[in-house]
Order: sequence, then C-alpha cells, then structure tokens
Amino acid sequence: MGRTPLRPDWIALDWGTTHVRAWAMTAGGDVLANTHSASGMGTLGADGYAPALAALTEEWELPQPCPVLACGMVGARQGWVDAGYAAVPTAPLSVPPVRVPDAPEQWNVRIVPGLSQTRPPDVMRGEETQIAGFLSLNPKFDGTLCLPGSHTKWVQISAGEVVSFQTSMTGEFYAALSKHTVLRHSIGTGWDDTAFTEAVSDGLSRPEALAARAFQIRADALLNGMDEATAAARLSGLLIGSELAHARPYWLGMPVAIIGAPQLAARYAAALEAQGVSPIIARADACTLAGLKAAYAAWKE
Amino acid sequence: MGRTPLRPDWIALDWGTTHVRAWAMTAGGDVLANTHSASGMGTLGADGYAPALAALTEEWELPQPCPVLACGMVGARQGWVDAGYAAVPTAPLSVPPVRVPDAPEQWNVRIVPGLSQTRPPDVMRGEETQIAGFLSLNPKFDGTLCLPGSHTKWVQISAGEVVSFQTSMTGEFYAALSKHTVLRHSIGTGWDDTAFTEAVSDGLSRPEALAARAFQIRADALLNGMDEATAAARLSGLLIGSELAHARPYWLGMPVAIIGAPQLAARYAAALEAQGVSPIIARADACTLAGLKAAYAAWKE
Repeated sequence: MGRTPLRPDWIALDWGTTHVRAWAMTAGGDVLANTHSASGMGTLGADGYAPALAALTEEWELPQPCPVLACGMVGARQGWVDAGYAAVPTAPLSVPPVRVPDAPEQWNVRIVPGLSQTRPPDVMRGEETQIAGFLSLNPKFDGTLCLPGSHTKWVQISAGEVVSFQTSMTGEFYAALSKHTVLRHSIGTGWDDTAFTEAVSDGLSRPEALAARAFQIRADALLNGMDEATAAARLSGLLIGSELAHARPYWLGMPVAIIGAPQLAARYAAALEAQGVSPIIARADACTLAGLKAAYAAWKE
Repeated sequence: MGRTPLRPDWIALDWGTTHVRAWAMTAGGDVLANTHSASGMGTLGADGYAPALAALTEEWELPQPCPVLACGMVGARQGWVDAGYAAVPTAPLSVPPVRVPDAPEQWNVRIVPGLSQTRPPDVMRGEETQIAGFLSLNPKFDGTLCLPGSHTKWVQISAGEVVSFQTSMTGEFYAALSKHTVLRHSIGTGWDDTAFTEAVSDGLSRPEALAARAFQIRADALLNGMDEATAAARLSGLLIGSELAHARPYWLGMPVAIIGAPQLAARYAAALEAQGVSPIIARADACTLAGLKAAYAAWKE
C-alpha cells in the first residue's frame, strides 16, 4: 500500500548560496511538508536550477504549471535570474517578484527582489523577505531589526517601511580569520560566555584595536596556553563588539528585534543586553516562511 | 673549465614560514652570494630542515662543520628547534642564539630567539633580527620602528632596547578578507593611490566601521561598478587606517622608521605622511642581513 503523495498548491523556496529549502504549501498558506538540499546558488550553473528544483520536490504531486516563489541569492546576478533591487526607503516587498523567463513550462517561478541603498551603498537579498515576514507577524513594530549572519544587517523600520540599513561582514570576518590566518592554530570548537562578554565590551570601547587584539589571541595561546574555546569566543566577541560600536545609532535607545538562528541570535542578544538593550528574538526560518507567504498572497491578488 | 666554487666561512639564513634565503658569508662579514628557495618552515617536517639546507647550499664549498646562523620561524615551536623568546624590555639580541641539538654533524646551526611581551601578550620571531640590524646600522636611533607585513610590528626603541611592541594582523587580515570572503569577487590586482589615502583617513577616524566599510566595497562594486584596483586600495587603506588609530601612541610626535619591502613600506609611509609624520625607510632584507651579522659576531666573540 503506497503512501498518498502530497499535493501542494505552490512551492515556497529559500534559495541561498550554499543551501536551498522548499516548503510544500497549500493555497491557504499551510505547510504540508518541507525539505532541503545542498544545491545552493553557488553550486549551480545557469542550467542547474530547474533540475535542482525537480529533484528537491520529486516526492510531491505538483500542479501543472506549479507556482514557485523564491527568495535569496537565487535572484542575484549569478543566479537563475537577476531579480534586481528595490531602493530604500520602501516597504520590503514593494516591487513584485520577478518571473524567471526561461524556466521549463512545468514551473511558474518568481523571485523576490532584494533591497538596495544609495548612500552609503548597501544591498541585501533574502533578508527583505525575513523582514516582510517579521512585519506580517508583528505589524505594529517600529524600531531596529538585527539579522545576524555572514553579512549582519541592521535595519531601521518605521511605519512598515525599511528606512535605512547597514551591513557588517562580521560573520564572514570570523570565518575567514579563524580559518585562513594564523588564528586557525589557536581557535577551535567550544565556547566561553565570560570571554565573549568581556571581548564584546573590549571591542565596543576599543574597536580600533581589532587587528592587534586578534593577534593577542595567538600570543596568549603561545605564551599562556589559552584554550581554543576561549579563543573562539574572544574573536567572536571582538568582532561583534566592534560591530556594535558602529551600529550604535541603530540600537541605542531603540526597540530591537533579532531575526536569526537560535544560537547566533542568543549571542547578539547577550551582547546587546550587556549594553542595556532588551531585544526580542524571532526565528529566521519562521520569518522567511511568513515573508514568502506574504509575497505569494500579493502575487496572487 | 669549471667555475671555482665559492668558499664561505659561514651561512646566514632568513628562514620564514614560506621561504628561506641563504647568504654565503666571509668571516669578515662580506656577502659572497645569496640564494633562496620555497622550503619554508611551513612546508617542512622535523626531518626536512637539514636536507633543505643542504640543497640550498649545494653549490658552495663549506667548512666542516659549517657555522649556520638563522632567524625566523625556523625557531618556532613547529620549527627545527624551539628557540624560545627573550622578554622585553631587552636589547633585541640579548639572549644567545640557540643550538639545534640534532643537526647532522656537518652543520653547526644556531637560531636567534624571538621576543615576547607579557602585558599585553605579544610575540615576534624574525623581526628582532631586523631590529638588531637596523640598530647596528643606526646606533643612535631612539623612537618607533614600524615593520609592516602579515603581522605588522610597532616597536618602541630607547637606548638600544626594545621597550614595548604591538602587533597588528593587518597583512593577514587583507589576505584572508580579499581571498576568502565575498570581497574576492570585487578585489583584483592594481592600485589607486587616491582611494588608498581616503580610506586610510576613513579607517583612522572611524575604525569601528571596518566590517561595514568592507561590505560597502562589495555593494559599491555591485551598484556602481567600482573597479577592482579601487576596491583593493580601499580595503588596504581601511585596514591600515584602523591600525594607525590603535598605534597612535607609537607614531604621534615620534621619530619613525619603517623597515619593510619597498612597495609596502611606501604605502605605510604615505599613510603616515598624511598624518604629518615623516618616516625614514630601511630595507627589510638589508636589516635582516645586518642583524644576522651582528648576531654572528656576538656568537663568535
């Protein structure tokens, strides 16, 4: 006796550089199932997107053609189609999703545009959908959103619009410095909350010392046997502290919500709490799905 | 008719992580020849040093045993022997070079110890020899030495001693960020002096903005087509500017000498000149050789 296949009405996709997640959705916005693979944008050539989508959804019985709404790096210049950007200030989904013109006929694929800022120059792609989702779940929110990650975004929200935003490459700095410098000999897995909090404070008050404090991690390991967990927490804290120094206008005296993976969001929350800010935390995946549902509802109106 | 082989009295070695350079020396300190290879410490296991040394010097007719004096990462914990550190404040060659106990009998190898500092923790290995060489060439110098590189050193010199020093991982930050983050798509070869000078000033006045300004390089390339030479100069300038902000007590109102490779030294000089400092420049390789000669003279006394 075979299983009855799932029959979604449309597919929601969070298609980033390294991963893709698909949700099987009903027209009413319920999730029937979800699945994921490592077929990120960075692994695919121009002809790879449709087969990757077919493989990801092969267990589902799909309408013909099947509506697909995607966000993330799949809409970058190197992606399936360049979905462009909407310029701030703007509501995060103000520009309709862009159709992929050369998708096979069984797919009706649209991709959410990113957001861009002219001065200073800045871009986001994928986070605009999380922001839209957060605002659909918290429609009265005015204040600052912090979306930590490889490229952490600080976003000023007023009356449902993104007024301005600021990206710090904090996560990518951590990855590059901990893996591709002499610090790779001193930094390991594990974590030390006290070292993190102290380093946040140090980075916030002396951000100009970053490249020197980073080397001190190596020297402290060589001279004093500092352990790898302390070293990891210290580098992370220095970077987040420096970032907080620059992002101060975004969080000082403002309501702050963090949208992120639980562990990383908790670290940013601890860093902010030490500065007297009490952020709320929202899950990134829940916000992404809510944003894709909002975009789909607008598309189908 | 064969060439008469060179007959050095001893070998001077600058043995770093990625390269090794050998000078064939007379007892009186004259250079007969020099050669180099890519047999850096990072490429060698414990049994690899003696064969690498033999290969490097195979065209020379050496005394038996041959005195060899080395500086650099060959004296690190992962090197041929751990040459340890002398603690500052100290003259840069105050501790005698350390003998390699298990070298084959045709070699009498000694390695110059590095320098260490307790508070804040810091280490150098190789630069102490350049400092000693600079001081042997400029015995009256009191002030600050700047040794730019992967790990740039700022060194306070007074009465022939290293009083304190401070390391910034500026060069390694540049390499890791330009090769192992999203910036690799925007940074190329080439250089722009104006972009560099502006970025130094920006980094010096707003060091906390580093991780955000770095992402702006990417955004400026995406939105405005900024060229790769401008991007390279801007990232370098931001990093050196941030470093200068932290190193200010070392250069503000002080005589400054830069010991480095010509191109990198010129960039640090330009950055300092924009702050009203007029550094002198000494060649790193000349200082290394002078330092090894000074260490050899002390060994043979």
